[in-house]
Amino acid sequence: MPTETTIRVRYKDTDVMGIVYYGNYLTYFEVGRVEYLRERGYPMSEVQRKIHLPVVEAAVKYRRPARLDDLLRVRTWVGERRRASFTFRYAVHHGETHALIATGQTRHCCLEPESQKLVSVPEWLGTILPVEKWESPDD
Amino acid sequence: MPTETTIRVRYKDTDVMGIVYYGNYLTYFEVGRVEYLRERGYPMSEVQRKIHLPVVEAAVKYRRPARLDDLLRVRTWVGERRRASFTFRYAVHHGETHALIATGQTRHCCLEPESQKLVSVPEWLGTILPVEKWESPDD
Amino acid sequence: MPTETTIRVRYKDTDVMGIVYYGNYLTYFEVGRVEYLRERGYPMSEVQRKIHLPVVEAAVKYRRPARLDDLLRVRTWVGERRRASFTFRYAVHHGETHALIATGQTRHCCLEPESQKLVSVPEWLGTILPVEKWESPDD
Amino acid sequence: MPTETTIRVRYKDTDVMGIVYYGNYLTYFEVGRVEYLRERGYPMSEVQRKIHLPVVEAAVKYRRPARLDDLLRVRTWVGERRRASFTFRYAVHHGETHALIATGQTRHCCLEPESQKLVSVPEWLGTILPVEKWESPDD
Repeated sequence: MPTETTIRVRYKDTDVMGIVYYGNYLTYFEVGRVEYLRERGYPMSEVQRKIHLPVVEAAVKYRRPARLDDLLRVRTWVGERRRASFTFRYAVHHGETHALIATGQTRHCCLEPESQKLVSVPEWLGTILPVEKWESPDD
Repeated sequence: MPTETTIRVRYKDTDVMGIVYYGNYLTYFEVGRVEYLRERGYPMSEVQRKIHLPVVEAAVKYRRPARLDDLLRVRTWVGERRRASFTFRYAVHHGETHALIATGQTRHCCLEPESQKLVSVPEWLGTILPVEKWESPDD
Repeated sequence: MPTETTIRVRYKDTDVMGIVYYGNYLTYFEVGRVEYLRERGYPMSEVQRKIHLPVVEAAVKYRRPARLDDLLRVRTWVGERRRASFTFRYAVHHGETHALIATGQTRHCCLEPESQKLVSVPEWLGTILPVEKWESPDD
Repeated sequence: MPTETTIRVRYKDTDVMGIVYYGNYLTYFEVGRVEYLRERGYPMSEVQRKIHLPVVEAAVKYRRPARLDDLLRVRTWVGERRRASFTFRYAVHHGETHALIATGQTRHCCLEPESQKLVSVPEWLGTILPVEKWESPDD
């Protein structure tokens, strides 16, 4: 099941166009995937002692602008898993109107923290990253 | 009574020193004062149609670093009120250890939105900005 | 010809992993495309009076981390043009080692500022957005 | 002599009020003091291997708003030096109109990187931190 997180749009998140700055959706995605891991028992501050999960690709589709004070609902789920990488997918909806605001994904690889060498997705992590059949509103 | 808001420290908020970047406390203060007004019936998106409240002075004292995943508790209250300006005060504590992380204040003036002329604190706003006897951990 | 802009990595741009936070590359891309337009005679503060150019899609590929103090070189060019949208492409290299740090693109549509209705790329804008044969290091 | 740095206001720096978000001046101050040290031969990425200089207090006075595309001039100098701490002062002017935008200061203490214990300002650092008689536009 996707994890659902709510985020209130801050002044800091908006720009002179009166809407949320486009780069901030990558921060909202970060909040989504960190909550995804926390809900399954792995706070990021613990995860990063065991494994580094740098983003190797990120993409966003912007559907509707979000504005100051909007309460956004970020859904996060796993879209794909390979041997040494996996992909989180995200859908951001408006909390009240339920309108689709943005969708996107981030692909992460697995690095051993000391050596920074690429490694396979460890088993403990694999078990909490089942690929979801849940369809993105994009599809 | 102070308003109490909780904020989870994001990756985005940290810097290469491993702690929350010093400038982000002004964002945490923003979240605190926006929640203060919302709790009293005035979401910022409505407030700014009636009056602009630009920050004219801000100050922060940094007591202890905050780190990724920390859940912070931001207390916000009114420290002073003059004819055409007022001061929010803030205290940020660690949510679990209750250690004091930072304190600070922001002074705001009142501008009429169209003319951008300085005006007195309007009565509707004054009634929700009672000066608190609540002492800052700074004092 | 691509526009070339240099950006010094700030503390604010880094995160607890010791590298530039992944979302900040969208800010670096913004700096690149704003400089692209300025170089051709159109500062953004003027452009947005004539036309709004919201990002409808953005994507980043992360090749190597960038770190505090690194001087980055952002190249920006036009990768595609359709009737009512166009795509900027970006390549970020390390200023000294010339290593490729990140590549990406942003697709923009054209909105009439008052009505916020979709319009064709205006002629004055089209003339400064020639599609470049310049190949991305991605290709 | 104060160090002078120019900073172009980015979209990312603005907010829905159409002006630079108040918290971003602490980032502009960061850029100012990092350039101060670099000009005197000490890039921050080297400095932090020798000594940590966390901000213990920061303050900003906002005089006039800055807007998208504005080219700001940040002056940075040393306002005070004690045994184990020192204060940078900053003045931000508009690059074209020369209008005063903001002033402020940050007080830093000195921590030994390994132990994180408070130490005196080391001699090599003291020699590049002469207290300036240069008066702030605030005074």
